Amino acid sequence: MSQNIYDNAQFFAGYATLDRSVKGLDGAPEWPALQCLLPDIQDKQIIDLGCGYGWFCRWAQQQGAAHILGLDVSEKMLERAREMTTGNGIDYQHADLETLKLPSENIDLAYSSLALHYLQNIDGLFATLFQALKPGGKLVFSAEHPIYTATLKQGWINHVDGQKCWPVDHYQQEGERLSNWFAEGVKKQHRKLATWINALIAAGFVIEQLDEWGPSDDQIAANPALSEEKERPMLFLLSARKPG
Amino acid sequence: MSQNIYDNAQFFAGYATLDRSVKGLDGAPEWPALQCLLPDIQDKQIIDLGCGYGWFCRWAQQQGAAHILGLDVSEKMLERAREMTTGNGIDYQHADLETLKLPSENIDLAYSSLALHYLQNIDGLFATLFQALKPGGKLVFSAEHPIYTATLKQGWINHVDGQKCWPVDHYQQEGERLSNWFAEGVKKQHRKLATWINALIAAGFVIEQLDEWGPSDDQIAANPALSEEKERPMLFLLSARKPG
Repeated sequence: MSQNIYDNAQFFAGYATLDRSVKGLDGAPEWPALQCLLPDIQDKQIIDLGCGYGWFCRWAQQQGAAHILGLDVSEKMLERAREMTTGNGIDYQHADLETLKLPSENIDLAYSSLALHYLQNIDGLFATLFQALKPGGKLVFSAEHPIYTATLKQGWINHVDGQKCWPVDHYQQEGERLSNWFAEGVKKQHRKLATWINALIAAGFVIEQLDEWGPSDDQIAANPALSEEKERPMLFLLSARKPG
Repeated sequence: MSQNIYDNAQFFAGYATLDRSVKGLDGAPEWPALQCLLPDIQDKQIIDLGCGYGWFCRWAQQQGAAHILGLDVSEKMLERAREMTTGNGIDYQHADLETLKLPSENIDLAYSSLALHYLQNIDGLFATLFQALKPGGKLVFSAEHPIYTATLKQGWINHVDGQKCWPVDHYQQEGERLSNWFAEGVKKQHRKLATWINALIAAGFVIEQLDEWGPSDDQIAANPALSEEKERPMLFLLSARKPG
C-alpha cells in the first residue's frame, strides 16, 4: 500500500494549518472549478476517495445526496471527520485505495481531491471504480499536475533576466518523487498526464473535461500570492463518465 | 489566417535541412509512436492537414489508401510535394486550415503532423473535421506540447546544481508565442493541453489516446542527442474518434 503520511504526527499538525484544512472547501482555490465538473448530486450515491476531514462529504450531505461513503487511509483523518459530522447519510471507513473492493454499479459519483497522486497502482483503482459506478455515473477528481511533480528538485527558479519559472525535468521518468512538505520524505507518484488519461480510457471511461487549474483574476485580486499559480499548473481536475 | 512562415525563403531553406525534411517520416523520431495511433488505412479516404513535402501522403499511398488529399498553406511546400509524387490517388491543394470547408462524412482519417499549433482558431477546424469524418472515423495529429510552448523564453536552463531543466512560465496565458526558428518571429499558438482536449470533446470527438512523446532507449542509443527529450515533452500525439 501507499505511504500513509497523514498519520505522521508532524505532517498531520502541519496539514491542519492549511487553509483547506481550516476553512474546508472554501479554503481550496480550485474548489469553484472542481464544483463545475460535478453532476447534480441530489439523491445520489457518492464515494469520496481520500475524504480527509470530510469537508466534501458534509457538503454533499447538505446538497441532498442520498448517501456518502468517505474513505481514507488515515485513522486520524477519519477520527476528525467523524467528530465534525452530524446527521445521517455519511459513513466513514478506513480503506487502502490500492486494494479497494466495491459492489458493482452502485455509485453515481466517485470523487477524489488531491489523493490519487499518492497511489502507485492507478489502473486497479480505475477498474474498480468503473465497475462500481452505475452506467452514466461519473468520476471527478483532482491530483497534482505532472508539470509540478516531474522535477527532482521542486521549487521556483529564475531565467537569467530574473523572470520566475518552474523547472521541468525527468518528465518521462514516472514513479516516486520525494518532497519535504510538512515532513521529510513525503512520497508521491509522478505520472504523465497522458498516463492518467490513457488509464481512464483503458478502464472504459470517456473523458469529459480536463482543467489544468489556474487562479481567476478575482482570486488573485483577493489573494495576490495566488498569482504565481498562473505560471504553471500545480493541479489538474478531470471528469470522466462511464458510458450508458 | 495564420502566418505562412513556410513561404519565407530563409525559413524554407532552413526547414529543408531538417532530418524530417531530408529523410521524411523516418527522420521524425515520433513517427513510430504516431504510426501506432493510426488505423488501418487500406482503401480509406484520408486528408493530411499541413502536408508539407507530402511524405505522409506518399506513405499512405504505399499503404493502399483509396485517396489522399494533402492540404497546405505553403505553395512552395505543395510544389515540392507534387514534384516528389508519382502515381495516382493523391491530390495536393492550397488551403487555409482556419477557413477550410469539406464535404460531410466523406473522410476515414484526418491526419496532421506539427501543423495545428500554428492555428489561432482550433475550434472551427475541429468542427469542420468532425462533420467531414465518417462515423467511426479518426483524427490523429501531433502538435507542439504546451510544456514546450508556454515559456516566453524558450531554451534549456540549469538548476543551481547544474541539472538541465526546461522553464515553464505563463502556462495559463494562451495565445501567440514568437520563436526564432530558421527565421525571426515565427508565430505559434500556445494553448493548454486541457484546451486541446476540451475543444475536441466540445466538437463531438471521443478521446482515444494521448502520447506525450519521449524517445525510446533504442532511439537514444542510436542518437544520443535525443536524450534531452526525456526531460520534457516537446510534442504530443493524440487520437480522437467520431462516434458511430
